[in-house]
Amino acid sequence: MNTPDWNVSEWLNVEGPLSLEGLKGKVVVMETFQMLCPGCVATGLPQAQRVADSFSPDDVQVIGLHSVFEHHQAQGHRAALEAFLHEYRYTFPVAIDRVDDAHRQPATMRAYGMQGTPTLVLFDRSGQRVLQHFGHLPDLVLGAKIERLKEARGGTGDQAKHEARATREDTAESCGEAGCLI
Amino acid sequence: MNTPDWNVSEWLNVEGPLSLEGLKGKVVVMETFQMLCPGCVATGLPQAQRVADSFSPDDVQVIGLHSVFEHHQAQGHRAALEAFLHEYRYTFPVAIDRVDDAHRQPATMRAYGMQGTPTLVLFDRSGQRVLQHFGHLPDLVLGAKIERLKEARGGTGDQAKHEARATREDTAESCGEAGCLI
Amino acid sequence: MNTPDWNVSEWLNVEGPLSLEGLKGKVVVMETFQMLCPGCVATGLPQAQRVADSFSPDDVQVIGLHSVFEHHQAQGHRAALEAFLHEYRYTFPVAIDRVDDAHRQPATMRAYGMQGTPTLVLFDRSGQRVLQHFGHLPDLVLGAKIERLKEARGGTGDQAKHEARATREDTAESCGEAGCLI
Amino acid sequence: MNTPDWNVSEWLNVEGPLSLEGLKGKVVVMETFQMLCPGCVATGLPQAQRVADSFSPDDVQVIGLHSVFEHHQAQGHRAALEAFLHEYRYTFPVAIDRVDDAHRQPATMRAYGMQGTPTLVLFDRSGQRVLQHFGHLPDLVLGAKIERLKEARGGTGDQAKHEARATREDTAESCGEAGCLI
Repeated sequence: MNTPDWNVSEWLNVEGPLSLEGLKGKVVVMETFQMLCPGCVATGLPQAQRVADSFSPDDVQVIGLHSVFEHHQAQGHRAALEAFLHEYRYTFPVAIDRVDDAHRQPATMRAYGMQGTPTLVLFDRSGQRVLQHFGHLPDLVLGAKIERLKEARGGTGDQAKHEARATREDTAESCGEAGCLI
Repeated sequence: MNTPDWNVSEWLNVEGPLSLEGLKGKVVVMETFQMLCPGCVATGLPQAQRVADSFSPDDVQVIGLHSVFEHHQAQGHRAALEAFLHEYRYTFPVAIDRVDDAHRQPATMRAYGMQGTPTLVLFDRSGQRVLQHFGHLPDLVLGAKIERLKEARGGTGDQAKHEARATREDTAESCGEAGCLI
Repeated sequence: MNTPDWNVSEWLNVEGPLSLEGLKGKVVVMETFQMLCPGCVATGLPQAQRVADSFSPDDVQVIGLHSVFEHHQAQGHRAALEAFLHEYRYTFPVAIDRVDDAHRQPATMRAYGMQGTPTLVLFDRSGQRVLQHFGHLPDLVLGAKIERLKEARGGTGDQAKHEARATREDTAESCGEAGCLI
Repeated sequence: MNTPDWNVSEWLNVEGPLSLEGLKGKVVVMETFQMLCPGCVATGLPQAQRVADSFSPDDVQVIGLHSVFEHHQAQGHRAALEAFLHEYRYTFPVAIDRVDDAHRQPATMRAYGMQGTPTLVLFDRSGQRVLQHFGHLPDLVLGAKIERLKEARGGTGDQAKHEARATREDTAESCGEAGCLI
């Protein structure tokens, strides 16, 4: 599982742009969402905020990635996203995935081979992508996975990578309650 | 409690414009909302859809009223609302409350003296407003109120009107979980 | 749909025994349950308490009927039920359905032809059984049905009876989440 | 934080008696409950089952401890508990805390200085008690704590012990939604 750089156009809820390189040393939890995706609003984003509230920011950085692949006119501009984050009181940094007119999906979503939203991506302390999950991951399981990455200081993360691959292959779910498929 | 006409600019999810005059003979349940109001998304609109699914359309007409009083750029255009209704699978007719540049609140919201969103308004079969409630009304109570109005064919609705006034006076709630105050 | 008398051995949460005859003039909502039935604990009994809290006791009387048809040793004695009602803070009157050693089901449950627990039974103001439902009835629908019975002062309740019959025929559900089949 | 032996009278859902000594090598999650404690039924026990379903039994052993300190007649005999476990489909081993007529609380609950039910106790792979929590612990936090103990093979668990102590001091909650205080 490779780890493409984030290719995003703007950041909200944070001063400057963030990068995997700059976040090395922390576990990174990235919640990929669309503001009009019901599964993201009901489940994915509240879980991301719980992660941000439950772990120390010295150990775990939560990031939202707004990856719009439908209804661009409605949710594809900064003001709409700002209003959404304000009303729902989300406080973690959010990046806007770069729109590429040649493709329906934005750049980072495409580089990561995501199936839709919400998609949760975990990165270890060395900045390597180690898990990618489309749909909902129970809190009990997510808490354990984050803790394992927290504990693996400087480790190669081989076991976690293996697990991540397996998880991803299992996630060929249909759209609906859980989320929006591409 | 008087009953101003609806002053709206557009209708979605329905062929032509609806009016209280044209709906005479039916009980009308109007859910006033904003698409970025968390209390509307989590509670008010799902309840409106349950009403639409639980009562015969011959007896009860559910209407959404999109009354934007904040974040106009994000939620104040038709495409945003269309995308929202599509993603959340809301099928009842929705009117866009008329924006009036001289005022922060749109026209119908202002004429009805609403305090914020979500606000539920019930109209009897003769088209008279008989209840207006800001915030959440439990399903058990709402089901009973709709049924009373259904049964009151041709009645003057005096008792219901009295109750409505009382309900409205009680609803001076603070913003937050329940909804967005003007 | 006939209306057998209640055949019960004891009453809790109330001074003397109650009867349909004595409750004439009120709508009666009877929640038939077992204290170890998960669907009753999670859904049926909380709904019964909401009904008791939402309607005037002058109009609507909520009754619990403890009809034990399994695990008699565990839940079939008064002390167990008392402890249960105390811990869960249920305040409406509860009758213990009369155990009949010749049959697995207690007397009232058998006379009413119930399929299991929870079963909701509605009686009109004249004491006639007008609806019987095994499993869960949504609050919106239950609120409407209670209100219709409240409004039908002295009526013959023909329409409600018809509806009740239809509802009951539809409820051939399997056991599990919803409740316990006999 | 010392670790008294479990002093129990019977085991359900398992062949022979279990002990901390015999479980060495596994993380042990012990859910202390009463079958008529609403907070245990609604929150604590479902969480215990989720733990049993989410972690490998080679790594994590879930145990229920039925510690009755009130309503002994109703919930203090084996048949009542068996019926409860059967109806709610709980499959993990459950021990009955030993009743001691000289005290209101049973023996293990007393030895562990518990404040009421539900109380969650975590033991590391060496059989040492490292966390004790009265009330509800969010899944995200519990998942992380279990994982940390899983990873700490042969470690001294000093950090976890410290944390456990802090958690316990924080839990002076009042009774009600969360659980039953002694």
